Amino acid sequence: MSPSEKLRELGLALPSVSTPAGAYIPARRSGNLVFTAGQVPFVDGKLPKTGKIGGDVSAEDGYDLARTCALNALAAVDALVGLDSVTGIVKVVGFVASSPEFGGQPKVINGASDLLGEVFGEAGAHARSAVGVAELPMNSPVEVELIVEVG
Amino acid sequence: MSPSEKLRELGLALPSVSTPAGAYIPARRSGNLVFTAGQVPFVDGKLPKTGKIGGDVSAEDGYDLARTCALNALAAVDALVGLDSVTGIVKVVGFVASSPEFGGQPKVINGASDLLGEVFGEAGAHARSAVGVAELPMNSPVEVELIVEVG
Amino acid sequence: MSPSEKLRELGLALPSVSTPAGAYIPARRSGNLVFTAGQVPFVDGKLPKTGKIGGDVSAEDGYDLARTCALNALAAVDALVGLDSVTGIVKVVGFVASSPEFGGQPKVINGASDLLGEVFGEAGAHARSAVGVAELPMNSPVEVELIVEVG
Repeated sequence: MSPSEKLRELGLALPSVSTPAGAYIPARRSGNLVFTAGQVPFVDGKLPKTGKIGGDVSAEDGYDLARTCALNALAAVDALVGLDSVTGIVKVVGFVASSPEFGGQPKVINGASDLLGEVFGEAGAHARSAVGVAELPMNSPVEVELIVEVG
Repeated sequence: MSPSEKLRELGLALPSVSTPAGAYIPARRSGNLVFTAGQVPFVDGKLPKTGKIGGDVSAEDGYDLARTCALNALAAVDALVGLDSVTGIVKVVGFVASSPEFGGQPKVINGASDLLGEVFGEAGAHARSAVGVAELPMNSPVEVELIVEVG
Repeated sequence: MSPSEKLRELGLALPSVSTPAGAYIPARRSGNLVFTAGQVPFVDGKLPKTGKIGGDVSAEDGYDLARTCALNALAAVDALVGLDSVTGIVKVVGFVASSPEFGGQPKVINGASDLLGEVFGEAGAHARSAVGVAELPMNSPVEVELIVEVG
Protein backbone atom coordinates (compact mmCIF):
# COMPACT_ATOMS: atom_id res chain seq x y z
CA MET A 1 0.00 0.00 0.00
CA SER A 2 1.41 3.39 -0.94
CA PRO A 3 1.84 6.14 1.67
CA SER A 4 -1.05 8.11 0.20
CA GLU A 5 -3.31 5.04 0.24
CA LYS A 6 -2.25 4.37 3.81
CA LEU A 7 -3.09 7.94 4.79
CA ARG A 8 -6.57 7.49 3.36
CA GLU A 9 -6.99 4.20 5.20
CA LEU A 10 -6.08 6.02 8.42
CA GLY A 11 -8.80 8.54 7.65
CA LEU A 12 -6.26 11.32 7.27
CA ALA A 13 -5.90 13.95 4.58
CA LEU A 14 -2.89 16.11 3.97
CA PRO A 15 -3.66 19.71 4.87
CA SER A 16 -2.76 22.55 2.56
CA VAL A 17 0.78 23.74 3.09
CA SER A 18 1.08 26.60 5.57
CA THR A 19 2.54 29.84 4.34
CA PRO A 20 6.00 30.04 5.87
CA ALA A 21 6.28 32.46 8.78
CA GLY A 22 9.37 33.99 7.19
CA ALA A 23 11.56 34.27 4.12
CA TYR A 24 11.92 30.57 3.43
CA ILE A 25 10.15 27.67 1.71
CA PRO A 26 8.28 24.71 3.23
CA ALA A 27 10.67 22.04 1.89
CA ARG A 28 13.88 21.83 -0.15
CA ARG A 29 15.33 18.88 -2.05
CA SER A 30 19.01 18.16 -2.47
CA GLY A 31 19.92 14.92 -4.20
CA ASN A 32 17.83 12.15 -2.66
CA LEU A 33 17.05 14.07 0.52
CA VAL A 34 14.22 16.47 1.22
CA PHE A 35 14.58 18.78 4.20
CA THR A 36 11.39 20.28 5.57
CA ALA A 37 11.09 23.54 7.40
CA GLY A 38 10.22 23.28 11.06
CA GLN A 39 6.47 22.80 11.24
CA VAL A 40 4.21 24.06 13.97
CA PRO A 41 0.81 22.39 14.50
CA PHE A 42 -1.25 24.76 12.40
CA VAL A 43 -4.79 23.61 11.65
CA ASP A 44 -6.38 25.89 9.05
CA GLY A 45 -3.66 28.44 9.71
CA LYS A 46 -4.21 28.59 13.47
CA LEU A 47 -2.52 26.98 16.45
CA PRO A 48 -5.06 24.81 18.32
CA LYS A 49 -3.13 25.42 21.55
CA THR A 50 -0.36 27.69 22.68
CA GLY A 51 1.94 27.65 25.69
CA LYS A 52 4.43 25.36 27.38
CA ILE A 53 4.09 21.62 27.64
CA GLY A 54 4.15 20.47 31.23
CA GLY A 55 2.45 23.77 32.09
CA ASP A 56 -0.46 25.21 30.10
CA VAL A 57 -0.50 22.25 27.72
CA SER A 58 -0.51 18.60 28.79
CA ALA A 59 1.93 16.03 27.43
CA GLU A 60 -1.04 14.17 25.96
CA ASP A 61 -2.14 17.24 24.04
CA GLY A 62 1.49 17.72 23.05
CA TYR A 63 1.47 14.23 21.52
CA ASP A 64 -1.51 15.16 19.35
CA LEU A 65 0.08 18.47 18.37
CA ALA A 66 3.31 16.72 17.34
CA ARG A 67 1.23 14.40 15.17
CA THR A 68 -0.25 17.44 13.47
CA CYS A 69 3.25 18.88 12.95
CA ALA A 70 4.29 15.66 11.21
CA LEU A 71 1.19 15.73 9.00
CA ASN A 72 2.00 19.33 8.04
CA ALA A 73 5.57 18.30 7.24
CA LEU A 74 4.31 15.49 5.00
CA ALA A 75 2.09 18.01 3.23
CA ALA A 76 5.18 20.11 2.52
CA VAL A 77 7.00 17.06 1.17
CA ASP A 78 4.00 16.07 -0.93
CA ALA A 79 3.74 19.51 -2.50
CA LEU A 80 7.41 19.38 -3.49
CA VAL A 81 7.98 15.81 -4.66
CA GLY A 82 4.77 13.84 -4.18
CA LEU A 83 4.27 11.77 -1.05
CA ASP A 84 4.54 8.44 -2.85
CA SER A 85 8.07 9.18 -4.02
CA VAL A 86 9.22 9.03 -0.39
CA THR A 87 11.25 5.88 0.21
CA GLY A 88 11.96 6.48 3.89
CA ILE A 89 12.06 8.87 6.80
CA VAL A 90 15.66 9.59 7.77
CA LYS A 91 15.58 12.04 10.66
CA VAL A 92 13.12 13.84 12.91
CA VAL A 93 14.00 16.74 15.17
CA GLY A 94 11.34 17.72 17.67
CA PHE A 95 11.47 20.93 19.65
CA VAL A 96 9.17 21.01 22.67
CA ALA A 97 8.43 24.32 24.41
CA SER A 98 8.84 23.03 27.93
CA SER A 99 7.83 24.30 31.33
CA PRO A 100 10.55 24.10 33.99
CA GLU A 101 11.37 20.52 35.04
CA PHE A 102 9.38 18.93 32.21
CA GLY A 103 11.46 16.01 30.91
CA GLY A 104 8.90 14.13 28.83
CA GLN A 105 9.93 15.43 25.40
CA PRO A 106 10.25 11.91 23.94
CA LYS A 107 6.62 11.06 24.71
CA VAL A 108 5.47 14.27 23.06
CA ILE A 109 7.50 13.74 19.89
CA ASN A 110 6.25 10.15 19.70
CA GLY A 111 3.13 11.78 18.25
CA ALA A 112 5.19 12.58 15.16
CA SER A 113 7.12 9.31 15.13
CA ASP A 114 4.02 7.16 15.54
CA LEU A 115 2.28 8.88 12.62
CA LEU A 116 5.31 8.32 10.41
CA GLY A 117 5.36 4.66 11.40
CA GLU A 118 1.66 4.28 10.61
CA VAL A 119 2.02 5.86 7.17
CA PHE A 120 5.36 4.42 6.06
CA GLY A 121 5.70 1.19 8.05
CA GLU A 122 9.31 0.01 8.35
CA ALA A 123 10.47 2.68 5.90
CA GLY A 124 9.27 5.22 8.43
CA ALA A 125 11.82 4.15 11.07
CA HIS A 126 14.00 7.21 11.69
CA ALA A 127 16.71 8.65 13.89
CA ARG A 128 15.41 11.37 16.16
CA SER A 129 16.34 14.12 18.55
CA ALA A 130 13.85 15.59 21.01
CA VAL A 131 14.79 18.64 23.04
CA GLY A 132 13.04 21.08 25.31
CA VAL A 133 13.33 24.69 24.24
CA ALA A 134 12.49 27.97 25.93
CA GLU A 135 10.18 29.48 23.33
CA LEU A 136 8.81 28.63 19.91
CA PRO A 137 7.38 30.88 17.19
CA MET A 138 3.95 32.29 18.00
CA ASN A 139 4.07 30.54 21.39
CA SER A 140 3.62 27.17 19.68
CA PRO A 141 4.02 24.23 22.10
CA VAL A 142 5.92 22.09 19.58
CA GLU A 143 7.81 22.25 16.28
CA VAL A 144 8.93 19.30 14.16
CA GLU A 145 11.26 19.09 11.16
CA LEU A 146 11.95 16.09 8.92
CA ILE A 147 14.63 14.80 6.60
CA VAL A 148 13.14 12.28 4.18
CA GLU A 149 14.61 10.18 1.41
CA VAL A 150 13.12 10.09 -2.07
CA GLY A 151 13.61 7.50 -4.79
CA MET B 1 25.75 37.42 -11.66
CA SER B 2 27.79 35.14 -9.41
CA PRO B 3 27.22 35.11 -5.64
CA SER B 4 30.53 36.87 -5.05
CA GLU B 5 29.67 39.57 -7.61
CA LYS B 6 26.27 39.96 -5.99
CA LEU B 7 27.89 40.36 -2.57
CA ARG B 8 30.04 43.15 -3.95
CA GLU B 9 27.01 44.80 -5.53
CA LEU B 10 25.34 44.72 -2.12
CA GLY B 11 28.37 46.46 -0.68
CA LEU B 12 29.22 43.44 1.46
CA ALA B 13 32.51 41.67 1.99
CA LEU B 14 32.98 38.28 3.53
CA PRO B 15 34.63 38.58 6.93
CA SER B 16 37.56 36.42 7.89
CA VAL B 17 36.44 33.10 9.33
CA SER B 18 36.11 33.10 13.11
CA THR B 19 38.26 30.72 15.06
CA PRO B 20 35.88 28.02 16.29
CA ALA B 21 35.01 28.29 19.99
CA GLY B 22 35.83 24.59 20.42
CA ALA B 23 37.35 21.47 18.94
CA TYR B 24 35.67 21.65 15.56
CA ILE B 25 35.98 23.25 12.15
CA PRO B 26 33.95 26.06 10.55
CA ALA B 27 32.51 23.93 7.73
CA ARG B 28 32.61 20.34 6.50
CA ARG B 29 31.79 18.94 3.09
CA SER B 30 30.24 15.55 2.43
CA GLY B 31 29.32 14.77 -1.16
CA ASN B 32 27.48 17.75 -2.59
CA LEU B 33 26.53 19.19 0.79
CA VAL B 34 28.48 21.55 3.01
CA PHE B 35 27.45 21.77 6.65
CA THR B 36 28.54 24.88 8.51
CA ALA B 37 29.14 25.15 12.20
CA GLY B 38 26.67 27.24 14.14
CA GLN B 39 27.74 30.86 13.66
CA VAL B 40 27.34 33.61 16.20
CA PRO B 41 27.36 37.24 14.99
CA PHE B 42 31.01 37.95 15.55
CA VAL B 43 32.33 41.16 14.02
CA ASP B 44 36.10 41.30 14.23
CA GLY B 45 35.97 38.52 16.81
CA LYS B 46 33.53 40.27 19.13
CA LEU B 47 29.79 40.07 19.67
CA PRO B 48 28.22 43.47 18.91
CA LYS B 49 25.45 42.68 21.40
CA THR B 50 24.80 40.06 24.04
CA GLY B 51 21.68 39.02 25.89
CA LYS B 52 18.19 37.76 25.14
CA ILE B 53 16.04 38.89 22.28
CA GLY B 54 12.74 40.29 23.49
CA GLY B 55 14.62 41.51 26.57
CA ASP B 56 18.05 43.20 26.40
CA VAL B 57 18.12 43.00 22.62
CA SER B 58 15.30 44.10 20.31
CA ALA B 59 13.91 41.89 17.55
CA GLU B 60 15.12 44.50 15.04
CA ASP B 61 18.67 44.24 16.33
CA GLY B 62 18.24 40.47 16.30
CA TYR B 63 17.41 40.65 12.60
CA ASP B 64 20.69 42.47 11.92
CA LEU B 65 22.62 40.01 14.07
CA ALA B 66 21.13 37.04 12.22
CA ARG B 67 22.21 38.67 8.96
CA THR B 68 25.75 38.85 10.33
CA CYS B 69 25.57 35.18 11.37
CA ALA B 70 24.64 34.25 7.79
CA LEU B 71 27.48 36.32 6.39
CA ASN B 72 29.88 34.55 8.76
CA ALA B 73 28.50 31.20 7.63
CA LEU B 74 29.05 32.14 3.99
CA ALA B 75 32.63 33.08 4.87
CA ALA B 76 33.11 29.57 6.29
CA VAL B 77 31.67 28.04 3.11
CA ASP B 78 33.82 30.28 0.94
CA ALA B 79 37.00 29.30 2.76
CA LEU B 80 36.21 25.61 2.25
CA VAL B 81 34.85 25.39 -1.28
CA GLY B 82 34.65 28.88 -2.75
CA LEU B 83 31.41 30.83 -2.58
CA ASP B 84 30.77 30.63 -6.31
CA SER B 85 30.65 26.85 -6.25
CA VAL B 86 27.45 27.05 -4.16
CA THR B 87 24.45 26.01 -6.25
CA GLY B 88 21.83 26.51 -3.57
CA ILE B 89 20.99 26.94 0.09
CA VAL B 90 19.28 23.83 1.41
CA LYS B 91 18.56 24.42 5.08
CA VAL B 92 18.89 27.08 7.75
CA VAL B 93 18.51 26.48 11.46
CA GLY B 94 18.30 29.58 13.60
CA PHE B 95 18.59 29.52 17.36
CA VAL B 96 17.33 32.65 19.09
CA ALA B 97 18.20 33.26 22.75
CA SER B 98 14.74 34.35 23.81
CA SER B 99 13.37 36.20 26.79
CA PRO B 100 10.24 34.65 28.32
CA GLU B 101 7.16 34.96 26.10
CA PHE B 102 9.12 36.14 23.05
CA GLY B 103 7.62 34.35 20.04
CA GLY B 104 9.11 36.37 17.18
CA GLN B 105 11.92 33.98 16.24
CA PRO B 106 10.89 33.88 12.56
CA LYS B 107 11.27 37.65 12.18
CA VAL B 108 14.73 37.49 13.72
CA ILE B 109 15.95 34.66 11.51
CA ASN B 110 14.59 36.45 8.46
CA GLY B 111 17.78 38.50 8.77
CA ALA B 112 19.68 35.39 7.68
CA SER B 113 17.11 34.24 5.13
CA ASP B 114 16.83 37.65 3.49
CA LEU B 115 20.60 37.92 3.06
CA LEU B 116 20.71 34.48 1.46
CA GLY B 117 17.92 35.50 -0.91
CA GLU B 118 19.74 38.71 -1.85
CA VAL B 119 22.98 36.88 -2.59
CA PHE B 120 21.68 33.71 -4.25
CA GLY B 121 18.30 34.71 -5.65
CA GLU B 122 15.99 31.75 -6.27
CA ALA B 123 18.81 29.31 -5.51
CA GLY B 124 18.86 30.78 -2.01
CA ALA B 125 15.34 29.57 -1.20
CA HIS B 126 15.74 27.16 1.72
CA ALA B 127 13.87 25.14 4.31
CA ARG B 128 14.26 26.57 7.78
CA SER B 129 13.66 26.01 11.46
CA ALA B 130 13.68 28.84 13.98
CA VAL B 131 13.53 28.07 17.68
CA GLY B 132 13.94 29.98 20.91
CA VAL B 133 16.60 28.64 23.21
CA ALA B 134 17.53 29.35 26.79
CA GLU B 135 21.18 30.29 26.35
CA LEU B 136 23.74 30.54 23.59
CA PRO B 137 27.54 30.46 23.72
CA MET B 138 29.08 33.61 25.18
CA ASN B 139 25.59 35.01 25.78
CA SER B 140 25.12 35.50 22.03
CA PRO B 141 21.56 36.53 21.11
CA VAL B 142 21.48 34.36 17.99
CA GLU B 143 23.22 31.45 16.27
CA VAL B 144 22.67 30.27 12.69
CA GLU B 145 23.84 27.15 10.84
CA LEU B 146 23.52 26.34 7.14
CA ILE B 147 23.46 23.34 4.86
CA VAL B 148 24.40 24.39 1.33
CA GLU B 149 24.68 22.50 -1.94
CA VAL B 150 27.75 22.69 -4.13
CA GLY B 151 28.08 21.81 -7.80
CA MET C 1 45.07 2.38 12.86
CA SER C 2 41.35 1.74 12.45
CA PRO C 3 38.79 3.57 14.61
CA SER C 4 38.03 0.38 16.54
CA GLU C 5 41.75 -0.25 17.16
CA LYS C 6 42.12 3.36 18.25
CA LEU C 7 39.21 2.98 20.68
CA ARG C 8 40.92 -0.04 22.23
CA GLU C 9 44.19 1.87 22.48
CA LEU C 10 42.32 4.60 24.33
CA GLY C 11 41.03 1.97 26.75
CA LEU C 12 37.47 2.53 25.60
CA ALA C 13 34.79 0.03 24.66
CA LEU C 14 31.58 0.81 22.84
CA PRO C 15 28.62 0.40 25.17
CA SER C 16 25.55 -1.53 24.13
CA VAL C 17 23.09 0.65 22.25
CA SER C 18 20.48 2.24 24.48
CA THR C 19 16.87 1.43 23.80
CA PRO C 20 15.39 4.55 22.24
CA ALA C 21 13.18 6.56 24.60
CA GLY C 22 10.50 6.70 21.92
CA ALA C 23 9.22 5.40 18.61
CA TYR C 24 12.45 5.76 16.66
CA ILE C 25 15.73 3.98 15.94
CA PRO C 26 19.27 4.75 17.18
CA ALA C 27 20.71 5.53 13.74
CA ARG C 28 19.56 5.72 10.11
CA ARG C 29 21.59 5.57 6.93
CA SER C 30 20.78 7.44 3.74
CA GLY C 31 23.33 7.18 0.95
CA ASN C 32 26.76 7.81 2.41
CA LEU C 33 25.47 9.55 5.52
CA VAL C 34 24.41 8.06 8.84
CA PHE C 35 22.27 10.22 11.10
CA THR C 36 22.22 9.24 14.77
CA ALA C 37 19.43 9.90 17.21
CA GLY C 38 20.17 12.41 19.91
CA GLN C 39 22.11 10.56 22.59
CA VAL C 40 21.95 11.26 26.29
CA PRO C 41 24.87 10.12 28.50
CA PHE C 42 23.40 6.81 29.57
CA VAL C 43 25.82 4.45 31.33
CA ASP C 44 24.22 1.03 31.74
CA GLY C 45 20.85 2.57 31.00
CA LYS C 46 21.10 5.25 33.69
CA LEU C 47 22.06 8.92 33.67
CA PRO C 48 25.14 9.44 35.88
CA LYS C 49 23.98 12.99 36.59
CA THR C 50 20.84 15.01 36.01
CA GLY C 51 20.12 18.73 36.10
CA LYS C 52 21.32 21.92 34.50
CA ILE C 53 24.91 22.69 33.59
CA GLY C 54 26.11 25.83 35.29
CA GLY C 55 23.80 24.95 38.19
CA ASP C 56 23.52 21.40 39.61
CA VAL C 57 26.14 20.07 37.22
CA SER C 58 29.54 21.65 36.60
CA ALA C 59 30.88 22.42 33.14
CA GLU C 60 33.70 19.93 33.80
CA ASP C 61 31.21 17.16 34.53
CA GLY C 62 29.29 18.30 31.45
CA TYR C 63 32.42 17.75 29.37
CA ASP C 64 32.64 14.15 30.59
CA LEU C 65 28.93 13.60 29.97
CA ALA C 66 29.23 14.94 26.41
CA ARG C 67 32.08 12.48 25.85
CA THR C 68 29.78 9.68 26.97
CA CYS C 69 27.06 10.92 24.62
CA ALA C 70 29.52 10.73 21.71
CA LEU C 71 30.57 7.22 22.69
CA ASN C 72 26.92 6.18 22.77
CA ALA C 73 26.41 7.73 19.34
CA LEU C 74 29.37 5.78 17.97
CA ALA C 75 27.85 2.61 19.42
CA ALA C 76 24.66 3.36 17.47
CA VAL C 77 26.69 3.89 14.29
CA ASP C 78 28.69 0.71 14.90
CA ALA C 79 25.55 -1.38 15.34
CA LEU C 80 24.18 -0.10 12.03
CA VAL C 81 27.17 -0.01 9.69
CA GLY C 82 30.27 -1.03 11.65
CA LEU C 83 32.52 1.62 13.16
CA ASP C 84 35.37 0.96 10.75
CA SER C 85 33.26 1.85 7.75
CA VAL C 86 33.12 5.45 8.98
CA THR C 87 35.24 7.68 6.77
CA GLY C 88 34.60 10.92 8.62
CA ILE C 89 32.50 12.86 11.09
CA VAL C 90 30.47 15.51 9.28
CA LYS C 91 28.40 17.31 11.89
CA VAL C 92 27.80 17.39 15.64
CA VAL C 93 24.92 19.13 17.33
CA GLY C 94 25.17 19.46 21.08
CA PHE C 95 22.25 20.50 23.27
CA VAL C 96 23.23 21.64 26.76
CA ALA C 97 20.56 21.97 29.46
CA SER C 98 21.75 25.30 30.78
CA SER C 99 21.14 27.21 33.97
CA PRO C 100 20.39 30.92 33.48
CA GLU C 101 23.40 32.92 32.27
CA PHE C 102 25.53 29.83 31.51
CA GLY C 103 27.32 30.53 28.21
CA GLY C 104 29.96 27.79 28.22
CA GLN C 105 28.19 25.37 25.87
CA PRO C 106 31.24 25.05 23.57
CA LYS C 107 33.47 23.83 26.39
CA VAL C 108 30.89 21.22 27.35
CA ILE C 109 30.43 19.90 23.83
CA ASN C 110 34.21 19.76 23.40
CA GLY C 111 33.88 16.53 25.39
CA ALA C 112 32.20 15.02 22.34
CA SER C 113 34.42 16.72 19.78
CA ASP C 114 37.64 15.75 21.54
CA LEU C 115 36.62 12.09 21.68
CA LEU C 116 35.83 12.11 17.97
CA GLY C 117 39.24 13.66 17.28
CA GLU C 118 40.99 11.03 19.38
CA VAL C 119 39.23 8.15 17.62
CA PHE C 120 39.18 9.40 14.02
CA GLY C 121 42.10 11.84 13.83
CA GLU C 122 41.79 14.33 10.98
CA ALA C 123 38.76 12.49 9.60
CA GLY C 124 37.03 13.34 12.86
CA ALA C 125 37.13 17.09 12.18
CA HIS C 126 33.50 18.20 11.99
CA ALA C 127 31.22 21.22 11.81
CA ARG C 128 29.32 21.77 15.03
CA SER C 129 26.55 23.68 16.72
CA ALA C 130 26.28 23.96 20.48
CA VAL C 131 23.22 25.53 22.04
CA GLY C 132 21.77 25.90 25.51
CA VAL C 133 18.28 24.50 25.91
CA ALA C 134 15.69 24.74 28.65
CA GLU C 135 15.09 21.06 29.33
CA LEU C 136 16.25 17.71 28.01
CA PRO C 137 14.62 14.29 28.21
CA MET C 138 14.71 12.73 31.68
CA ASN C 139 16.43 15.88 33.00
CA SER C 140 19.62 14.93 31.15
CA PRO C 141 22.27 17.67 31.27
CA VAL C 142 23.37 17.11 27.67
CA GLU C 143 22.32 15.49 24.40
CA VAL C 144 24.49 15.00 21.31
CA GLU C 145 23.65 13.91 17.76
CA LEU C 146 26.01 13.08 14.90
CA ILE C 147 26.02 12.96 11.14
CA VAL C 148 28.81 10.67 9.94
CA GLU C 149 30.05 9.68 6.50
CA VAL C 150 30.54 6.06 5.51
CA GLY C 151 32.60 4.65 2.67
